[in-house]
Amino acid sequence: MSQCFSRFQQEASSGVARAGRFETSRGPVLTPAFMPVGTQGTVKGITPAQLADIGPQVILGNTYHLGLRPGDALVRDLGGLHRFMAWPGPILTDSGGFQVFSLSSLRRIKEEGVTFQSHIDGSTHFLSPERSLEIQRNLGSDIVMALDECPPGRLDRPGLELSMARTTRWLKRCRDFPLGERQGLFAINQGGVHLDLRTRHLGEILEIDAATPFQGFAVGGLSVGEPKEEMNALLADFVRLMPGDRPRYLMGVGTPEDLLFGIEHGVDLFDCVLPTREARHGTLLTSRGRVKIKNARHRDSDRPLDPECNCYTCRTFSRAYLHHLFRAGEMLASTLNSIHNLSYTVGLTRAARQALQEERFPEFARHTRDNWNQEEP
Amino acid sequence: MSQCFSRFQQEASSGVARAGRFETSRGPVLTPAFMPVGTQGTVKGITPAQLADIGPQVILGNTYHLGLRPGDALVRDLGGLHRFMAWPGPILTDSGGFQVFSLSSLRRIKEEGVTFQSHIDGSTHFLSPERSLEIQRNLGSDIVMALDECPPGRLDRPGLELSMARTTRWLKRCRDFPLGERQGLFAINQGGVHLDLRTRHLGEILEIDAATPFQGFAVGGLSVGEPKEEMNALLADFVRLMPGDRPRYLMGVGTPEDLLFGIEHGVDLFDCVLPTREARHGTLLTSRGRVKIKNARHRDSDRPLDPECNCYTCRTFSRAYLHHLFRAGEMLASTLNSIHNLSYTVGLTRAARQALQEERFPEFARHTRDNWNQEEP
Repeated sequence: MSQCFSRFQQEASSGVARAGRFETSRGPVLTPAFMPVGTQGTVKGITPAQLADIGPQVILGNTYHLGLRPGDALVRDLGGLHRFMAWPGPILTDSGGFQVFSLSSLRRIKEEGVTFQSHIDGSTHFLSPERSLEIQRNLGSDIVMALDECPPGRLDRPGLELSMARTTRWLKRCRDFPLGERQGLFAINQGGVHLDLRTRHLGEILEIDAATPFQGFAVGGLSVGEPKEEMNALLADFVRLMPGDRPRYLMGVGTPEDLLFGIEHGVDLFDCVLPTREARHGTLLTSRGRVKIKNARHRDSDRPLDPECNCYTCRTFSRAYLHHLFRAGEMLASTLNSIHNLSYTVGLTRAARQALQEERFPEFARHTRDNWNQEEP
Repeated sequence: MSQCFSRFQQEASSGVARAGRFETSRGPVLTPAFMPVGTQGTVKGITPAQLADIGPQVILGNTYHLGLRPGDALVRDLGGLHRFMAWPGPILTDSGGFQVFSLSSLRRIKEEGVTFQSHIDGSTHFLSPERSLEIQRNLGSDIVMALDECPPGRLDRPGLELSMARTTRWLKRCRDFPLGERQGLFAINQGGVHLDLRTRHLGEILEIDAATPFQGFAVGGLSVGEPKEEMNALLADFVRLMPGDRPRYLMGVGTPEDLLFGIEHGVDLFDCVLPTREARHGTLLTSRGRVKIKNARHRDSDRPLDPECNCYTCRTFSRAYLHHLFRAGEMLASTLNSIHNLSYTVGLTRAARQALQEERFPEFARHTRDNWNQEEP
């Protein structure tokens, strides 16, 4: 297994919060970083040119969706996902496991893998550790996620232990799969909100890692319905225990509040559909908290959405215009709102990085939270 | 009434086809020109930055829609339509008449004006020549259209004559309305596909024009259900009779074939929702005719949509990607397809202008039609 990209270089820290970087063949990844989600080969409603202006370090592609449509062999034949979607920067692909366990129907889970029915046309498909990595190899992503069994949010301890054990066995099979030269493999830790299960599973992962190192480690199975306090308590205790010489990725998280909490507790990478989904529904994330653009109070407001934001939307349009577009059901509402929400979320991680480098991270975190809780002017 | 912008300067011609220009306070308008339609204060799915890249000379805003939502007084208070939608170039607003006669319900037409019910919420509104121009003054458009009575496509001659007479009386009231300093008024000619009615109505318009000149003349009431051959026969005979010292605007037209025919017969300005509507439905206008991007033959095509097109879509993506986005129902499909269709349509009028200036317009027209009719390679 090649050391396809560099280990994580820590550049600054504040407690367990840290700024760092690692190099991929498609450029450096500066952390903390939020990764916008491009489920079907597009970040919804945004062109790659608009995305480049937002400036994410990495974007995410979905193995489940792209494997079903247009199909990973087709994407491979067309030169890989980067070329297909015209995104030259680093791409992380997930394993497809989460979607198989949440989106598809009629799943049959065996040791070999999962048989499932496509949410598109009901056709039957099979996902195994090897098939997941084959899809990801065909897509040609820079960061490949191992296939884990994704347990439901409220699974009991015995259930979680069975799921962890299978995830460990699948991880070994992933480790043995020949990826592309430029691809790095991340392992996924499970164990619900239980610190003892998380650490035990981390031990199993590190045993495999000792023979051939992974390129990074992810925390999976959180933000799936468990109480937020339980997730946060687990993160506060657990993330610091993960190896510090590789990036730590908190999967499927989350809100601005979650990002700041995660960064404070040592997380380097995040992804979530929340910023773009909320954008389409008219909820905008700003330095002064959430703005529901549909509200009548914005109808005649000549102010920018967020005066502290420098994105295309905030530079160019008034709240009144965004209110009008949303009320009128115009497609451009989703585009402009998504540009802003992604700019805000990517910008939040970028600002945290800068604060860490300038040794003012605690003040930054306090100031950011204070502003969220202020009344809008 | 101020001479708010210059008369039409003819720069080149070929038969009755012509290239020209006129100056508005927001810059020159080079003709022939196709004007993209921004019904509700946005060209659907396109940001102003993307629109600027396409490079239209003028864009169109809809008085009916903007008057109802967000309301013309609000747009005025926010600095006018240019600022509201962040489009600094020339804007033409229609009179709202066409939409009142086609979109709204329960119309009562009297000499004073039309009472109608909003297609949005059923509320009752009134549109008169004065109210139409008041809305357009509040929007602050550069080119203002007089309110005409828009007869249905197959109205008989007596009906058309009544409608023409009312349009003439309304035109006098429009002429008397105090527009903004920077705004120019276009008169609309009616008369169906009947040359004698058209010329008679033109005479009535020119009688009003003799006292205070209009800034341009439009052909209304075509492309509303009449056979294409009848429309074309009328245009071939009539457009050449319109004053040559002002721009001639063929309203609501049309397809690439219609644009080329119109240019050949002396039309300077066009507008139509067709390029963006077809784009959203996956029909793409190219130098080799129409491409239905949904068709299976594009599924694995690495070729650009139109190798002769230099738009963002054609520069950046393969047909396979556009096919995938459309099949997957992604919003980005509409955006990329609209960018292309508008680029193609605006580019067709720009290429016609260049051919006129380079004295090779007949060859250009023949070559363009030959290419449309060729099998795709």
